[in-house]
Order: sequence, then structure tokens, then C-alpha cells
Amino acid sequence: MKRIENFKSIIDRYKIIFFDAFGVIKTYQGLVPGIEKTFSYLEAEKKEYYIVTNDASRSPAQLAESYHRMGLTAITSNRIVSSGMLTKEYLDLKVKDGIVAYLGTPDSAHYIDTSGLHTLPVSEVNSSNIDKVNALIFLDDEGFNWFDDLNKAVNILRKRTIPVIVANTDHAYPLSVHDVSIAIGGIASMIENIVGKEFIRFGKPDSQMFMFAYDLIREYRAVSKQEIVMVGDTLHTDILGGNKFGLDTVLVLTGNTLPGDVDTRITATGIVPTYICDNAVVQLGELGF
Amino acid sequence: MKRIENFKSIIDRYKIIFFDAFGVIKTYQGLVPGIEKTFSYLEAEKKEYYIVTNDASRSPAQLAESYHRMGLTAITSNRIVSSGMLTKEYLDLKVKDGIVAYLGTPDSAHYIDTSGLHTLPVSEVNSSNIDKVNALIFLDDEGFNWFDDLNKAVNILRKRTIPVIVANTDHAYPLSVHDVSIAIGGIASMIENIVGKEFIRFGKPDSQMFMFAYDLIREYRAVSKQEIVMVGDTLHTDILGGNKFGLDTVLVLTGNTLPGDVDTRITATGIVPTYICDNAVVQLGELGF
Amino acid sequence: MKRIENFKSIIDRYKIIFFDAFGVIKTYQGLVPGIEKTFSYLEAEKKEYYIVTNDASRSPAQLAESYHRMGLTAITSNRIVSSGMLTKEYLDLKVKDGIVAYLGTPDSAHYIDTSGLHTLPVSEVNSSNIDKVNALIFLDDEGFNWFDDLNKAVNILRKRTIPVIVANTDHAYPLSVHDVSIAIGGIASMIENIVGKEFIRFGKPDSQMFMFAYDLIREYRAVSKQEIVMVGDTLHTDILGGNKFGLDTVLVLTGNTLPGDVDTRITATGIVPTYICDNAVVQLGELGF
Amino acid sequence: MKRIENFKSIIDRYKIIFFDAFGVIKTYQGLVPGIEKTFSYLEAEKKEYYIVTNDASRSPAQLAESYHRMGLTAITSNRIVSSGMLTKEYLDLKVKDGIVAYLGTPDSAHYIDTSGLHTLPVSEVNSSNIDKVNALIFLDDEGFNWFDDLNKAVNILRKRTIPVIVANTDHAYPLSVHDVSIAIGGIASMIENIVGKEFIRFGKPDSQMFMFAYDLIREYRAVSKQEIVMVGDTLHTDILGGNKFGLDTVLVLTGNTLPGDVDTRITATGIVPTYICDNAVVQLGELGF
Repeated sequence: MKRIENFKSIIDRYKIIFFDAFGVIKTYQGLVPGIEKTFSYLEAEKKEYYIVTNDASRSPAQLAESYHRMGLTAITSNRIVSSGMLTKEYLDLKVKDGIVAYLGTPDSAHYIDTSGLHTLPVSEVNSSNIDKVNALIFLDDEGFNWFDDLNKAVNILRKRTIPVIVANTDHAYPLSVHDVSIAIGGIASMIENIVGKEFIRFGKPDSQMFMFAYDLIREYRAVSKQEIVMVGDTLHTDILGGNKFGLDTVLVLTGNTLPGDVDTRITATGIVPTYICDNAVVQLGELGF
Repeated sequence: MKRIENFKSIIDRYKIIFFDAFGVIKTYQGLVPGIEKTFSYLEAEKKEYYIVTNDASRSPAQLAESYHRMGLTAITSNRIVSSGMLTKEYLDLKVKDGIVAYLGTPDSAHYIDTSGLHTLPVSEVNSSNIDKVNALIFLDDEGFNWFDDLNKAVNILRKRTIPVIVANTDHAYPLSVHDVSIAIGGIASMIENIVGKEFIRFGKPDSQMFMFAYDLIREYRAVSKQEIVMVGDTLHTDILGGNKFGLDTVLVLTGNTLPGDVDTRITATGIVPTYICDNAVVQLGELGF
Repeated sequence: MKRIENFKSIIDRYKIIFFDAFGVIKTYQGLVPGIEKTFSYLEAEKKEYYIVTNDASRSPAQLAESYHRMGLTAITSNRIVSSGMLTKEYLDLKVKDGIVAYLGTPDSAHYIDTSGLHTLPVSEVNSSNIDKVNALIFLDDEGFNWFDDLNKAVNILRKRTIPVIVANTDHAYPLSVHDVSIAIGGIASMIENIVGKEFIRFGKPDSQMFMFAYDLIREYRAVSKQEIVMVGDTLHTDILGGNKFGLDTVLVLTGNTLPGDVDTRITATGIVPTYICDNAVVQLGELGF
Repeated sequence: MKRIENFKSIIDRYKIIFFDAFGVIKTYQGLVPGIEKTFSYLEAEKKEYYIVTNDASRSPAQLAESYHRMGLTAITSNRIVSSGMLTKEYLDLKVKDGIVAYLGTPDSAHYIDTSGLHTLPVSEVNSSNIDKVNALIFLDDEGFNWFDDLNKAVNILRKRTIPVIVANTDHAYPLSVHDVSIAIGGIASMIENIVGKEFIRFGKPDSQMFMFAYDLIREYRAVSKQEIVMVGDTLHTDILGGNKFGLDTVLVLTGNTLPGDVDTRITATGIVPTYICDNAVVQLGELGF
């Protein structure tokens, strides 16, 4: 574990950079100040980069668009690997027909639509179509009535023996400097506990997220894990997952892990990043290097 | 473990009977058929009895009234020991002043009102009164907006270091022959997990429920645990809790534990009742005995 | 939550004091310096006191003797309430005959011997006597071969559907200033997880420990919970358990909770003692008061 | 979910077969009767196959040899993917120098030896070398003194903030028709709980096991997940893991899941295999096809 002053010296050691999104590139206040310099540098140096994010609320195209609106045009949809994409791959491979019931917004459901499958909000499942429900997916914490639809989801799962996908493993997410929101991953764990069944989870720290990004690269060129570094703000998702997959890891202190807590939390959890860096901002010298 | 045909032969061995409510005396369809004979027999034989129930949704008086409406007048409010009563005792002893924020119906909050304390729905906590909130209580799954108020409860607990009481440990409860409902105990576990704090739970199988009933009796006469039997339909609350407290226990098959499952579940859980009986109905012979 | 300088001012407010043992009265280095002054003061003021301890390794008489050897004669066996005593009460009430198999030292088994029951080390259970084994008890981490006897315990529990008692809920205990030891409670949790059955645990924070002490007092006089204070060094056993039972609580900083950590840990766990005091030593003024 | 009579009809649908070892190919009594016919058929049909096993006790070469001794020569070391191999890959990528302390037999440690690293049994860690310990690995439940070395492992982890690898996620394994043995995965969970740190686990149902096998194939040819089927006897490792990775799955009833339990367990867990087949034995017609 080394403390690094300038994120540039990390980038210079690797060919491919995986970034977590929230707490690394953006916060609830917008982009991390200066982060656009990092992506300019990556482009100039012809490094590859991917955003590896626990987010199933929107499609990669919509996620990319949200960066563009903030002024970060370097992040295009083909750079984004989300837990929602793994959910879509699962449905493509494993659910051949019938209805996929979901909890989330229409946006979150739209991009997992697949030929042959019909997505339907849990609220619209009823006695006439329940027998065709072949999967249930937890996509987003918004877009439905919690009381009605969480109770309904429990009762669907008591009647149907079907795969349940949790498309975002987070239990809470930051809403403002003071407040958090309960995430769909936390809700899913409550329901898993009540129905006593085992759900399938996609998202960091699970290796399948990293594998998906790794495979995207290997489609067009050979790569070794030693050429990749994972940058994140959360020890038990970004750093634990990156470490386990065999990547070097960087913990930045612009999100979940605060500068004053970092040593305590590394010791307490035993999750050790390869590097610690205040932020993921490349600082160039006066002459631009 | 003995199988007993007639519940009467169990009653005849003990002086005091503790009954669970749901699944033993009543179901979602009303009273268990014939259960009034049990209470007539108990009265005739001058046995004592108590209803020991994980229920914080209403006061003992309101719970008793609901039995009266179904035609069972033998259950008076002084016969009822509920997890809500333990919550009230906790507040009396441990929270001296300020606001007690709650999740539940106004009914559930009313009877825990105590001199010096002010109960307030979580929805009405705001920046002007949050500093006076000295406890938060999970009372009932109804009476509030889940999305708004569960998120608000999480954020109150991030700002205030206060005791949190879960007045009902159940994670789900039966609604009809086909459906269940998520109970406040399940919701509380989700929030406990998200905020990472340790909540205080009242309800079976915890010994404090049994202690409360035991103490009610000891206020007017000496009693030994060997004179009491606990009757319930659920292995991991009624039977486990009764066993641990040192009571003999009867599992009845009119609720949570089905006749076809009983052996498998006893073996799987290792929770062994003293007796198994189809139901808690006293069957008298032709001449009334 | 108030910080108190002198433990004397706490004692002066209550009639009865419950003390945890390890980290409050003694450490691995012997008695807490000056603690004998506390017990002299209690005797002089005719206060009642009890040691409420998660310890099933020895009988109350042997535990008392160990204090006497350290020079603290005020702690007699009738002042001690241990999780081992609750185990013995459970056996007296609930296991009528047969063999009680145990993991622990002969000393730990001796005092739970009860008329009609036969205690036997797990190592001596075999195909000729296994059918008579009617309970299995986790008493102490010493006195048996871990590899042989833990595996044997697992297989006994796969063959016999019997109550399993964990007589000490702690998962680890301090051995020296640098080292800890795995406690029998930690081992029991591993085996509970493997066999998938539900064990019965005696020990703080469970209310039954506090009830047992409370009942000892009530045998000879009336008492209210408001007259009692629980003194401990561990938030999630002593303080959580005391709070839940309705007692006022004092956290002392001579054991598990270090002075530098106390605020962080109270905020992190949400477990709030009534008072915090550096230690449980009564400091008298120059003239003895 | 379809019930299939003859395992041959499953093989005919896929190009690549992943087999679990224990409960599918062999049991504690030796090879599953007739299993050699399956491998003859696979060879004749030029299908590919891999053994994907939670086993870190021996090297692939030693595991292969054990099949040869039982008469199954078709399983060569290059056909075996074990959780021990993932452990070795982790060390190669992530631990650059120093000592790797381990719990297990010398055999289990030998094959993870890597240039630059020094494996050392936990029993030989002492105050002079503890500062060089850069990882701790749980390899096997045999080869060490449980009391001494498990306590020592706890104390090493309290002093060193290092990655901890659990090379086998199973909590127990079958020893005979009547008995099981506590596995190193169960022991590791106990210690993880005591030290409060997060360990890295390799083994089914984790996706990384399936990726490793998938990558072995892709080294020499393109492959789609739809060409592969996973065959296993355990719902929550083989079937859950295979499903999540996107593979079709076959549950066989020669191991963990008994014919009489299969429907109950699928409903209870919600883990649904693509096919159920009594065993993994290819039955050929009279004329050999």
C-alpha cells in the first residue's frame, strides 16, 4: 500500500484503467473538480478506460448522456460496464420466454427488453398472467409503490419458483452531503430473507462485473490482468472486487472513504488497496506534463 | 416429544397456560373452530391463562376487544402480554424526556404514550425537532408511506445516536390462505443492516416476553416454571422461546407448522416441543368431561 | 450519556450494583488497581452487588475462590451469576434423564451435574450410548481435542434431535495485552451454521442473565429496576443487555472499550450507556468520603 | 426444468461439459458406478470436458492421479479446474514477496509455491518472521493442530493487515454414508467473524471458478456460453453458480441432493436447474448408441 500524490503517476504504470463512477468521477454535486483533465490525459496517452458501475437504473447510452450533460464527453456508452448489462446478459442466456416482472422505473426496464421476453412492472402481475412470470428483477428503488409492490413481490415469489436477479448490490446510496437513500439491493436482501430463497446478484465486488469489462477488451486484443488498474472510493466493492479479480487497485478519497478514516477502515476490514490517492485527477506540470 | 390426541390432557397437567394468539386461537379466517371450549374449560377448572403475543399494533384493551367481537369474551386485557407492552416498559424506564419517533399507525403509538414523552410519526420529524428525538420505534407496517418514511428513518438514525426499539420481531405475517405481508420486524432488520447499528428487539423467542408474563403472575402468588406450559404454532418463536425460558411447550398444527411438515421441521431446526397436538381445542366427553 | 469522574457518585445513586467481571474487576494482569476500595465502600454503605458474568468454565464457588486468591474476599459465591448457572437451571427444568454430552473441562462439567443426569465428554460418546444423549453443551474451549471432538459433535447432532446449549456467548476472550483466544461461543456458532439447527444461548446481552440476578434479589425483598445499575466494559453485551432489561448502565474503560475509541464506538453501534466512567474504582476524599 | 432419463441426451446437446467431482463422478465409496461410460462416450464424440471442483487440498496432477488409481484415466490434470488453482493465480498476481502463511497439509501448500514467495505453516510463524507474512491462506482442514494454529491464525490477523484467501468455500464435506467432516471453509468463516475482516473466497458458486474454466477453453478456440453445460449434485454451489454464469445446468441425484428431496429443495431455495437427471452415466443402447 503506497500513498501517491499525483494520480498521473498511477496512470503511467498501466495500459487500462477501470473507474468506479460515483465518488470517483462524480458526486451528488456534479463532476469531481478537475476530473476532465484525467480523461484528456488518457485520450492523449491512448490509454483505454472503462466505467465499471453498480447501476441498473438506466442503459449505458443514458448513463453516457448524463456525463455529456455535465460536460464530460469522453465517456461514451461503449466505455460503460454496468450491473444492468450483466442482468441483460443473464436474461438473454437463461430466460427463454414469458414475462420478466420488475421493480424499478420504466427506463430501468426498457434496456433489458430482449426479443422473446416481455418486461412487466410487478404492479401489473395478476392472477391471469402470474403463471407466465419466469423471472423477477430488482432494478431500481424508484418507479413503484413500496408498500403495494414489495408485498406483491413477496407473494409472487411464494407462488413461482423462478430466478430472482438483483441488478444492483448496493444497500444505500448517497443523496446529498447529509442524506442517503435505501437502494434496491437493500430492499432485495430483506425480501430474500423473508422468502428464504437465494437470489442472483450482479455488481461489484462480484468478479463477474470485472470479467465482463475484461472480456470487452479481449474481443479485439490480448490483455493481461497486470496491465489493468481499478480505481474506486469504496473498500468492500471496488477494492475488494478488484483485488480478488487479480487487479491492482487505487482507493481515492472523494467518496465513501474519508481522508480521516482511511487507515482505520483498511485495518478494520483487512481490504488493502495497492495505492491510495486523494483523488483521480491527473495533475500536469506547468508545461503540460 | 409426545403426540397428544386431546388438548385437555395437557391442560390437566399444568396450572397456568400461555397461548400464542395467531395460529393457535385465531387465524385470518377468525377463531380456531371450537377454541371457546378450551377457555370454558380453563374457567371451569380455575386454571390461569395468558396470551403471549408478538403484536405491537394495538393496546391490550384493543386486542381483547377484537377477541370479544369474534365471540371470545374470556380473553380480557389483563390476560394479554404483548411485545408492545415491553416497549412501553422500556420507554418508561429508559427514555426520560423528548420525542419518541415511530413508524406505525396512530393506534399503535397511542398506548405507548407516557407522561413526559411525546410520540411523533417519523413523517413529522424535521430539522427543528430532530434534536429532541430520543428514541425511534418500529411499531407496525401500516400507517405511513414506506418510501418516504423508511428513507427518513435511515437518515434520522445517521444523525441521532439513540435507542431503536423493534416492537415486533416477526419478519412476515399471514394475510390470507395464500398471501403474507412484510412485517415491521423485517423492515427493521433491513434498516439495522443499512445504518449498521444494533437495535433492541422485543418479542418471542426472547426471554423477556416470558419473564413479563411470569412476573404478572408472581405479583399475586408464588409460581414455579414447572406449573406453566407454552402453546404455540411456530417452532422458532413460541417453542424455542418457551423451551429456553424453562417451560414445557406444546406445538399445535393450526398455524405456521403444517401436519405434513412437522417432523421434518423439528429435525431440521432441532427445536423440540414437549408435546405435539393437532390443535388447542379441549374435547370433552359426552357427559361434559 | 454523562461522563462521571468518580465512580463513587454513581454508586451513591443506586441500591444495587451489577458488575461484569473481566475488564471491570479484573484483567489478565490481575485485579483492576484500587477495585478493592469499591467493594469496601459497598460493604460500608450496605449496598448490594452481584457479578454478572458470561462464564461457564467453573462453578460460582470456584469463581469466588479465584477472587479470594487475588485478595478480593468481598466476592462470595452467592454474589455470582454466571451463564453456567443458567445452563444448570435449564438442565434441571428441561432435561429429565439420560446423558448430557459436553465440550469443556471436567471442572466446567462438574457443577452442572444434576440428579438423574449423567455428564459425559463428547469424546466418550459412541455407538452404544449415543441414543441416550439428550442434550449437548458447549461449556469451555479447553479440555478436549478440537479436531476430533468438534467433528464428533457435528455428527452427534446429525444423528440426534436434541437441545444444544451454548453456555457462553462470547466469540473470543483476551489472553494477554496482545493476544486473544477463540471462545466456545465462536466455535458453537460455526457448528450451528454447519448443522443448520438453532442452539440455545445463555449469556449477556440476553435478558435471561439479568432476570436471574434480579430474581435472586427478589427472593428476599422487593426491588425496582430503577434501583439497579449495570457496570460493564463491553457495549454489545453489558450495556446493550442492561439497557434492554431496563437498567441504567455504566461503561468503564478498563477493558474492551478503550478511552480513545469510546465515542466512535457508541456512535457506530448506537449502544448508549447512561454513564461513562474511566474505571469502577471508588475514590474517597482525604477524610474517607 | 426438465427431467431427463438418459444423461446421453444431455451430452448430445452441448459441446463442452463441466463436471463437479464429488457426488457426480465419485463418492466416498469410489467412482459412481458406470461413470467411465460417460467419459468413453465424451472421448468418442470428441466433446470437451472439465472437472470444476472446490478442492485446494492437492494439485491438479495429484487430483488426476487419484482418478487414475480408481481406474478413470480420462481425467488428466489439464482437465481440472480447482479453487486451489485460483488461489495460486491470486498469489501470482497480487502477492509480490514475503511469506504466505497457511493452514493445511504440506501437499496443499506445495503446489501454490511461486517464485519469490515462501509458504510457511501457521505453526512456524513467530515474532521474528511475522512482519514478513504478506498473506494467509486456508487450504485444508488437515495437517495442523486446530487448537494451537487456529488461535495463532486469529492473532496473526490481529497484528497484520494482509489478504486472507479461503481456497475452499465448503463448510463441511461427506466422510462416509453417515458422517461429515468440518471443512476449512467453515473454519475460515468462524475466524473471519472473530477478527471482523473480509476474506477472499475462491470456489463455486462464485463466478471466478467458471471464468477460469471458460478462459482455459478460449485460449485455443472461440466458445459461447450456450455450448456449455454444468453438471453438479449441489444446488447452492454447482447449479446456482452455473446459472449465474449463464450456463445451462444439470442436477444429478448421486450426491448432496437426494431423489426424495429434490422438488422440496428446488422450491425452498428457488435454485432451478435446466435439467434433472438421476446420474451422470451415459446409457448406450444395445448396439452401442
